[in-house]
Amino acid sequence: MHAIEKILAKAAGKDRVTTGEIVNAKVDFAEINDLYLQTIYSFREMGGKKVWDQDRVAFVFDHYAPAPTIKSAQIHKEMRAFAQENNLTYHFDINCGVCHQVMPERGVIYPGMIIVATDSHTTTHGAFGAFGTGVGATDMATVLISGELWFRVPEIIEVRIEGVPPKGVYPKDVILHILGQIKADGAVYKAIDFTGSYVEQLDVAGRMVICNMAVEMGAKTAYMQPNQKVLDYVAKRAVRPFEVQYSDADFVYTESYVFDVSNLTPQVAVPHSVDNVRPLESVEKVRINQGFIGSCTGGREEDIAVAAQILKGKKLPPYVRLVVIPASAEVMQACLEKGYIQTLIEAGATLSSPGCGPCLGAHEGVLAPGEVCVTASNRNFPGRMGSTEAEIYLASPATVAASVLNGYLTDPRTLL
Amino acid sequence: MHAIEKILAKAAGKDRVTTGEIVNAKVDFAEINDLYLQTIYSFREMGGKKVWDQDRVAFVFDHYAPAPTIKSAQIHKEMRAFAQENNLTYHFDINCGVCHQVMPERGVIYPGMIIVATDSHTTTHGAFGAFGTGVGATDMATVLISGELWFRVPEIIEVRIEGVPPKGVYPKDVILHILGQIKADGAVYKAIDFTGSYVEQLDVAGRMVICNMAVEMGAKTAYMQPNQKVLDYVAKRAVRPFEVQYSDADFVYTESYVFDVSNLTPQVAVPHSVDNVRPLESVEKVRINQGFIGSCTGGREEDIAVAAQILKGKKLPPYVRLVVIPASAEVMQACLEKGYIQTLIEAGATLSSPGCGPCLGAHEGVLAPGEVCVTASNRNFPGRMGSTEAEIYLASPATVAASVLNGYLTDPRTLL
Repeated sequence: MHAIEKILAKAAGKDRVTTGEIVNAKVDFAEINDLYLQTIYSFREMGGKKVWDQDRVAFVFDHYAPAPTIKSAQIHKEMRAFAQENNLTYHFDINCGVCHQVMPERGVIYPGMIIVATDSHTTTHGAFGAFGTGVGATDMATVLISGELWFRVPEIIEVRIEGVPPKGVYPKDVILHILGQIKADGAVYKAIDFTGSYVEQLDVAGRMVICNMAVEMGAKTAYMQPNQKVLDYVAKRAVRPFEVQYSDADFVYTESYVFDVSNLTPQVAVPHSVDNVRPLESVEKVRINQGFIGSCTGGREEDIAVAAQILKGKKLPPYVRLVVIPASAEVMQACLEKGYIQTLIEAGATLSSPGCGPCLGAHEGVLAPGEVCVTASNRNFPGRMGSTEAEIYLASPATVAASVLNGYLTDPRTLL
Repeated sequence: MHAIEKILAKAAGKDRVTTGEIVNAKVDFAEINDLYLQTIYSFREMGGKKVWDQDRVAFVFDHYAPAPTIKSAQIHKEMRAFAQENNLTYHFDINCGVCHQVMPERGVIYPGMIIVATDSHTTTHGAFGAFGTGVGATDMATVLISGELWFRVPEIIEVRIEGVPPKGVYPKDVILHILGQIKADGAVYKAIDFTGSYVEQLDVAGRMVICNMAVEMGAKTAYMQPNQKVLDYVAKRAVRPFEVQYSDADFVYTESYVFDVSNLTPQVAVPHSVDNVRPLESVEKVRINQGFIGSCTGGREEDIAVAAQILKGKKLPPYVRLVVIPASAEVMQACLEKGYIQTLIEAGATLSSPGCGPCLGAHEGVLAPGEVCVTASNRNFPGRMGSTEAEIYLASPATVAASVLNGYLTDPRTLL
């Protein structure tokens, strides 16, 4: 069996599971973000009184934090009331950040667990050797009542990544390149196991970037065998004992892809789809109105650090803007301590509250018709960040920083 | 003549002016914020091609920065295009802050000038011995074309403030107390000259707080004779030579009010009007959902410093939130350097982008129906910060910090 299958089998109280089988599995943690007030309504419609375990459910206010509208303020209010009624141990209000960053930081994510959340990018937690997947309001309401959910045991494909990319090429470039090859529907309902020498040496942040964007290929979940960096991270944080699962040596993947990133160059997903990926050097000069460094994909300390490195002592050109949003309050504090935020503000960046920010066009840097944005976030569909007539280029935080500095799409290797 | 009259007379090219007279005066600086796109349309409808002086006009993006909606992003886009077409020397984009803080910092405000802006709180600049007043889009369009505007020479009333308030009582408490006495219609179209021993020793930030809220009494403009602290401030910043005006010894005010603040206690304006002011100790225990420290009234270094002092090493109680928004990027950097922001985030505050934030209910902390907010900003009308069913208490930043720490309206003197 694969580690993912062992996680499902254990949670279902079974010795083994097979591909395609439907299992009913215990959920270790359930997270609801502020897009999903409907979860509470569904819970009540289904007869729910109290959540099954007050230690295993949390709300995270990230998509609309701090509240940009009366409607979102009302959503927060109802969710706070529900959290209080249920005496939830964990509650992540407007002062915390993006759920996929906050949960690992606070130790509710660890290897071998099942995490479900009302957010598609829950695949992020494969970085920790967890089974993470996004669910809708009805499924989540079921979990809140019973602590269990059905899962179809997915086909598991291997994406093996070998080599170490050159300087100026980042995990975001790696996953964009892979996405450009496997395409947006290349892994629908499948699990992606990222393996290979690149993944084995990768830091926690880089692993999260890659697992995060697995969902952009349609993946149900993502997985990476925990390395020592992951074990060190969770050792300091995990709120429960956990067991790392390992795939059996005889496990056979449904498919295997192999990528050698030794000679990879900076990549960019051009409008209007995530898999419309090209080497940056092949893209003609594109003028930029706004850059965004933030989100569950590109708002970590490592991302803000490289932007600060590129922009230190420089100034943005007139009428070009850069929105910087640390993925969490913890990331914000770390970046303040190291002076990255100060450097970026000095260069002309606009800092905003930890959370999803303009990634989904909710606030804090929405795009007007005709504007062009280069972003470290994860989606470039029409209207994702505001107007359907805006254009979004997905790239690494280094490419974002280099591009806003010049006012047009720029290879960061020229500035490092 | 009064200093205000001398400013108007000089700008109108006259030796003297008299109360009630209409004069046509040259404007020294004109500022348009991002609520007033209509200004550009009116300018064009009136046949405007280029602004009269590219050094004397600026846009400030503060009410909607960074853009929370497609509509506000579009407003910014059109304003940027206009600024570029007119090759404006000063342009304050989403990375700057609230106009009334940014303009003095950047040196376009100085004693003896006339500043008009599309914002009612332009009275703030009386703190510098300038004539500042808010105007609408049509008047502003006239200014952009001609560099001039008509003014009715206002009646001038004196508000003399004597004494030094006790520890824990701040300029915001002083102006709230005055407002409670003079009332919201007590100075309609009049100019208020703040005088007295309190004003003479007051720092720049405190002077700005008091002149800022003069408009809440209906004042056309506010004035304070520049003291050495003001002269030191503008000496480092003013982009032009300037002349301080002084009132003649024989000038007679229309009315004079005298306040002794030696025994003043913390004040609060309770819902739903700015002049519904009471001593904090007389207000029953009010539970608080959100505090706000920010805006052109309460977002300066001094305001954030006292909040940090009160919250250092403490934690907000569950489900109580505090939004902190430095009034400008310069304020943000100063507060970062001194560790105030770090202290506040550590205590559980939510930091957001320099700008007006939730003061006008646009974004970054909008209130839901039934919520209660204590705020360092300037207005508590129904709906000002979101829902018309929310309640807003105006207070000093110290009172805001003390109140969110306890979860109910609290006298900061108990914590200092």
